[in-house]
Amino acid sequence: MNLLLLEDQDFVAADRIHLSGRRLKHLNEVHRAEAGDSLRVGRLNGLMGRGQLLRLDGQEAELQVEFDQPPPTKLPLTLLLALPRPKMLRRVLQTVSAMGVPRLILLNSYRVEKSFWQTPFLQPEAIREQLILGLEQARDTVLPEVIIEKRFKPFVEDRLGQLAAGSLGLIGHPGAYPDCPRAVEQPVTLAIGPEGGWIPYEVEKLQEVGLQPVQLGARILRVETAVTALLARLF
Amino acid sequence: MNLLLLEDQDFVAADRIHLSGRRLKHLNEVHRAEAGDSLRVGRLNGLMGRGQLLRLDGQEAELQVEFDQPPPTKLPLTLLLALPRPKMLRRVLQTVSAMGVPRLILLNSYRVEKSFWQTPFLQPEAIREQLILGLEQARDTVLPEVIIEKRFKPFVEDRLGQLAAGSLGLIGHPGAYPDCPRAVEQPVTLAIGPEGGWIPYEVEKLQEVGLQPVQLGARILRVETAVTALLARLF
Repeated sequence: MNLLLLEDQDFVAADRIHLSGRRLKHLNEVHRAEAGDSLRVGRLNGLMGRGQLLRLDGQEAELQVEFDQPPPTKLPLTLLLALPRPKMLRRVLQTVSAMGVPRLILLNSYRVEKSFWQTPFLQPEAIREQLILGLEQARDTVLPEVIIEKRFKPFVEDRLGQLAAGSLGLIGHPGAYPDCPRAVEQPVTLAIGPEGGWIPYEVEKLQEVGLQPVQLGARILRVETAVTALLARLF
Repeated sequence: MNLLLLEDQDFVAADRIHLSGRRLKHLNEVHRAEAGDSLRVGRLNGLMGRGQLLRLDGQEAELQVEFDQPPPTKLPLTLLLALPRPKMLRRVLQTVSAMGVPRLILLNSYRVEKSFWQTPFLQPEAIREQLILGLEQARDTVLPEVIIEKRFKPFVEDRLGQLAAGSLGLIGHPGAYPDCPRAVEQPVTLAIGPEGGWIPYEVEKLQEVGLQPVQLGARILRVETAVTALLARLF
């Protein structure tokens, strides 16, 4: 937790907050914070600044806070991701949030096991929890938008073309394709497949709406690693 | 497991292997392999090729194998990493192995908790297990070398200068430093700090032997994410 992320209900006055629960536990056990300490704070979907710890015990912490700094900019990116397996999903949500992806679309694919759609980690509160951990890690305040699309074909045929219009459309896909471009200057729409990759039909459908396959080399990376590597290469 | 990685003791003849244990379980339960299937195989620290599954049951699998392909090239890199916390260490070892790092040095730092050095995940067999998972993921056969250096100062003062000679020496470090360079053509020695970063004294010591700080932006990334992002940017 490199940023103490504050929500509306934490505020008891415009410059005063009370904390309990997970964040208090973290302050006590990991930061070993003490009254008088100055901490980085951010207001969810708002500015960042500093907080001074006025008092802290096992039940509650009180901080005086001020906000004067904008959060870091997001990447100019819409990321389409074939739904990863549940355990990977949680980590990917944190990574996506930490890396500054503003919009994530979780999409079905032939190689996504049907059971993955049943995971409780897809509940809005569970998604939000992981996104917040990513923001706290990276020092950002703005929650990414997460969109769930359970049907590949209608989404790609009816909506993706419009979503991707005006952006560089890319498919991260191992094979005899051009290298993933570096340091691009324009907005990007990037589609990353499941373990095992998109099937040829899916690649064709994505190509029909203007996305082009690019690759990172012969090595097959886990989804989380591929996401990070592609974003670090692109931006 | 995108590659079935074979060790000397698996061979019952030059072109014939018997499998049991973890890899057999994976063939049965994840690949749902059947006799006649053709699988990608690799010989540990050797060539890659194909294996044909001759028979398979709950006890054992038998494959006929041939090897005709070199493994993918490694990155021209020595990676120095402040020892991560045990849970992160296991994932980082997989990532490092999957990304093609040939040499990893796990180093002490002021911000590495002493207890991290006690983890059973630092035992040679435990390290090897994670490295092999990374090779199986990425389709590589060559184990990275992992060196453990429990003392920062003597290692940096007495050995790092020589190790890093002739390479581009970099420190991944958040702050007002130049951007991490892209698509470099020469060998690199890259030092990545612990959660919370190297302390100023450590940065100075690394600078004294020719390493220069570079950064990836305002976002603070987890160690595993930082490793992947820096390597994807550099190579």
